[in-house]
Amino acid sequence: MPTYKAPLRDMRFLLNDVLRISEYSSLPGYSEASAETVDAILDSGAKFASEVLQPLNVVGDRQGCVRRPDGSVKTPDGFDKAYSAMVEGGWMTLSSDPDYGGQGLPRLLALAFSEMCSSANMAFGMYPGLTHGAYSAIHAGGSDEQKRLYLPRLATGKWSGTMNLTEPQCGTDLGLIRTRAAPLPDGAYSITGQKIWISGGEHDLAENIVHLVLARIEGAPEGVKGISLFIVPKFIPDSRGEPGERNQVACGGLEEKMGIHGNATCVMNYDGARGFLVGEPNRGMKTMFVMMNEARLGVGVQALAQAEAAYQNAAGFARERIQGRSITGAKAPDKPADPIIVHPDVRRQLMDCRAFIEGARAFAYWTALQGDLLHVSPDPKVREQAEDRMALMTPVIKAFLTDRGYKAVNDALQVHGGAGFTRDQGMEQFVRDTRISLIYEGTNGVQALDLVGRKLGANGGRGVFSFFADMDAFIAAHGGDERLEPFVAGLQTASAELREGTMWLMQNGMSDFDNAGASSHDYLHLFGLTALAYMWGRMAEAALPGAAAGDRFCVDKLVTARYFFARVLPDATSHLAKVKSGAGAVMALAADSF
Amino acid sequence: MPTYKAPLRDMRFLLNDVLRISEYSSLPGYSEASAETVDAILDSGAKFASEVLQPLNVVGDRQGCVRRPDGSVKTPDGFDKAYSAMVEGGWMTLSSDPDYGGQGLPRLLALAFSEMCSSANMAFGMYPGLTHGAYSAIHAGGSDEQKRLYLPRLATGKWSGTMNLTEPQCGTDLGLIRTRAAPLPDGAYSITGQKIWISGGEHDLAENIVHLVLARIEGAPEGVKGISLFIVPKFIPDSRGEPGERNQVACGGLEEKMGIHGNATCVMNYDGARGFLVGEPNRGMKTMFVMMNEARLGVGVQALAQAEAAYQNAAGFARERIQGRSITGAKAPDKPADPIIVHPDVRRQLMDCRAFIEGARAFAYWTALQGDLLHVSPDPKVREQAEDRMALMTPVIKAFLTDRGYKAVNDALQVHGGAGFTRDQGMEQFVRDTRISLIYEGTNGVQALDLVGRKLGANGGRGVFSFFADMDAFIAAHGGDERLEPFVAGLQTASAELREGTMWLMQNGMSDFDNAGASSHDYLHLFGLTALAYMWGRMAEAALPGAAAGDRFCVDKLVTARYFFARVLPDATSHLAKVKSGAGAVMALAADSF
Repeated sequence: MPTYKAPLRDMRFLLNDVLRISEYSSLPGYSEASAETVDAILDSGAKFASEVLQPLNVVGDRQGCVRRPDGSVKTPDGFDKAYSAMVEGGWMTLSSDPDYGGQGLPRLLALAFSEMCSSANMAFGMYPGLTHGAYSAIHAGGSDEQKRLYLPRLATGKWSGTMNLTEPQCGTDLGLIRTRAAPLPDGAYSITGQKIWISGGEHDLAENIVHLVLARIEGAPEGVKGISLFIVPKFIPDSRGEPGERNQVACGGLEEKMGIHGNATCVMNYDGARGFLVGEPNRGMKTMFVMMNEARLGVGVQALAQAEAAYQNAAGFARERIQGRSITGAKAPDKPADPIIVHPDVRRQLMDCRAFIEGARAFAYWTALQGDLLHVSPDPKVREQAEDRMALMTPVIKAFLTDRGYKAVNDALQVHGGAGFTRDQGMEQFVRDTRISLIYEGTNGVQALDLVGRKLGANGGRGVFSFFADMDAFIAAHGGDERLEPFVAGLQTASAELREGTMWLMQNGMSDFDNAGASSHDYLHLFGLTALAYMWGRMAEAALPGAAAGDRFCVDKLVTARYFFARVLPDATSHLAKVKSGAGAVMALAADSF
Repeated sequence: MPTYKAPLRDMRFLLNDVLRISEYSSLPGYSEASAETVDAILDSGAKFASEVLQPLNVVGDRQGCVRRPDGSVKTPDGFDKAYSAMVEGGWMTLSSDPDYGGQGLPRLLALAFSEMCSSANMAFGMYPGLTHGAYSAIHAGGSDEQKRLYLPRLATGKWSGTMNLTEPQCGTDLGLIRTRAAPLPDGAYSITGQKIWISGGEHDLAENIVHLVLARIEGAPEGVKGISLFIVPKFIPDSRGEPGERNQVACGGLEEKMGIHGNATCVMNYDGARGFLVGEPNRGMKTMFVMMNEARLGVGVQALAQAEAAYQNAAGFARERIQGRSITGAKAPDKPADPIIVHPDVRRQLMDCRAFIEGARAFAYWTALQGDLLHVSPDPKVREQAEDRMALMTPVIKAFLTDRGYKAVNDALQVHGGAGFTRDQGMEQFVRDTRISLIYEGTNGVQALDLVGRKLGANGGRGVFSFFADMDAFIAAHGGDERLEPFVAGLQTASAELREGTMWLMQNGMSDFDNAGASSHDYLHLFGLTALAYMWGRMAEAALPGAAAGDRFCVDKLVTARYFFARVLPDATSHLAKVKSGAGAVMALAADSF
């Protein structure tokens, strides 16, 4: 059975030495996040993830969720107690607004905790994850009354939340939504329609479930401009805010899936359910995107988290399994064979995982820091820059981290040889669970189109130019430092390639949108690799003093940085070549020839 | 539920127009393979695969195999009838030796049929696949008596076969095998030990099962030089060659796996079972490699076959599912949305699949043709060249086709969005089933090491130099042909990159074996991409006349060829860069730092 130990040293290194959060200690949230507090939270979060959540990971996969004839859903054994422990431990309130019962700590810290949860038990982690998303959407778009009623209960997790977008005829194309909302005399709405693939749509973990539902008010304009957002609680809160009358919403069935069996994926039937409009009519997409963007960052972190857990087990296996001899002579002559970690191709796979995971973690945490700054910085310039970065990087984090995270869990399985394919070893669950991350919250293709079609050109390209400026500044600051030579040179190459790809897109993507679409996937990967190169440059720089002092962690960080530039970054060149090949070859075949 | 239609036109194009098998009509086997015969076999083979095997694919996945308390194994409903139909239809005898009841047709043709079987039902196809492997091993290494007794029964499939290599403590490193063989007074051996992960080790499909077992004769030298090969029949044949006494071999358990649930993966316990030595003592590996090499080619074809089936379903889904509008304006204005095949990134994924599948099929069939020529050509020079090619390409076919085939089935799933993750859609089964192909018959890492460590330098590099000469000849012959310009130019680049990688390996891999090992994976992929470039050049050339005449198939072939060179081949550049980066970054981290 797989094990998991939170990579606390790496997390601290990022927070303290790379992102230097102490420099933000004058800001709300960060003022409370002293080194001692952060340490204590990370330590006990790690304990909670490893001791409470991780042992339930296999249970969740084997048992799955069960829908009873009355429409109620039983989660796997132990999930209810673990969820209660999470609520009681205050884990879900970490970064929530103190006005609504939250601890007001940085989101960055909450993200680190959620990484641990997703490493330990991805299916479980989705319940609190979506609950926090619902909290954020109501916080951003709800009325004061809605905030007072729902936020304290969602913040703690006493009530859980869901997002209801997909219908049988539409997932990506929300303009096709058919769920209807009819105004009631008292100002509420009557919601009718069917939603599918609703994660945590029904379960036995919380006393109430708050569904955020996209629907169309009678007479609304067609397409996405006629979509409104509603709160539809499973139990309608009574005058004291306690769960009251059962609403007309029910789980009509559970989806059988490839993985994340511990999470209930529900068909939700709304049959004249009472719903409460969030924000203005027909402006529902705007608020839903608050939840969706948070979820997209979270999904990228899920894949990174799964990769971390899978990697740890692969590394452990490679150190222990003996098989064959090193091609340069026996390394464990006292044993019948050497541990397989002596074999270069086994190491290649493990190093690929490491270089991805550590780079991706830096990238995700750096982006989460922007997510804090855009809310709490007193400087409008900083807020604007943070918002630009957050908008630009969200699709990259979602798609690049999940594509590469999926590769990493597959590499980790592969290191196990035949054992990796057996259920008992537990590696194949990582592959089955992680697979969804490339799909939900907008497929990776949708993310790529978001990047090239929306984010890149926003505000005249302000976000991407500011990212180039960040990299240029790093190169200028450290170009003369011999110790950083391979990293600065690699970053220089990467940023030049990304610039070239960006220029190509600007010149060719506007004149023929198919060029933008056909190149979007490779451009996003070129972008992700360059972002990781920037992160590896920054991590290498931060590791220098420790490495000079002989700190093993920092020495290893530089070794892994070297691996990234030598062995991972070269992929950028291929992606650039594909970007520049344009749409011709992609679009030439007639549809009925496929 | 997925469907499958054999790509007969593509198969015929390869056999007739690319490989031009009519030119070999003077050779044994090929003399019987007239165009009419080939057509008839492909047509009825396709019908058999689609109508008999494909409907059982989901059944096999859901039911799996069941071991009864008495050690017998029940295969999924319908597998027994399908297997009988395969035996009765003579499908398993296609390429077997007429001296032993075979039809003596080209192996190439049998491979095309096995591709269809693996597309339709990979788990089922393993039973006849391994049976033919056992046939080949005994044909290559057995005594006349063994051949007379076993070959006719294995050729038809009346008896089935298995290969028993792996033990709990060894998979890759067969020198660690512990299964013992003690000589009996009558010349037979008493076999004792445990084998694991034995595909088709026990089942209810055939009246007898012939296990080919690697074991160590008492007093044999240590390591792989002390391993012998034994026939251990489930029922010991009586004097008439009928299944007689039950042998002391039993299935001790079934493995729970990620996929191929329809195939019984058995723990096999040998408890003083009667075994019959094949060939000389301590030379068992040599004969087993006959079976293993055949299996490796077969595994590559499995992945290609699964990719074909998954692609067909993704293409069908993309033509039918409507969602969003084309970024260049509505293409189906009469519908609420356009079919998703209008979206460039959906096409990118489908074209990636096509360019891989068609190129891989050409590569596998071309290699299979070598497998025929090395046996039947009267010209020793041709036989030598064919043997060189076969030896060189086997690890490339196994690892490159499975790595890329797995990518293709994942892309095909991805095209389905959320539906791809559901069990009902059936796409996730392709991913779970195909995953094993990267592992069994030697992990892809072992294949890469076989390529750089053994095959590349064999006979002074004769095989690889002859491959370069093949490509040079093609470039020289068609360099002036404008119609082939992008393909010849692309092949020129690819072969130059492969040459550069090969030179690097020759210069650096011998002085430091870790360089060879660390670069082996990327070198193998560089090799595979170059081989596909050569195949795409040849296919483009063969498609020219048809395309000029307006034949849609040939026009499309040229379109896909262009895609391959523009959008797939650029990966070669990255692989070359990684090859040349050497072992340093790969080997630097201390084992206990992982």
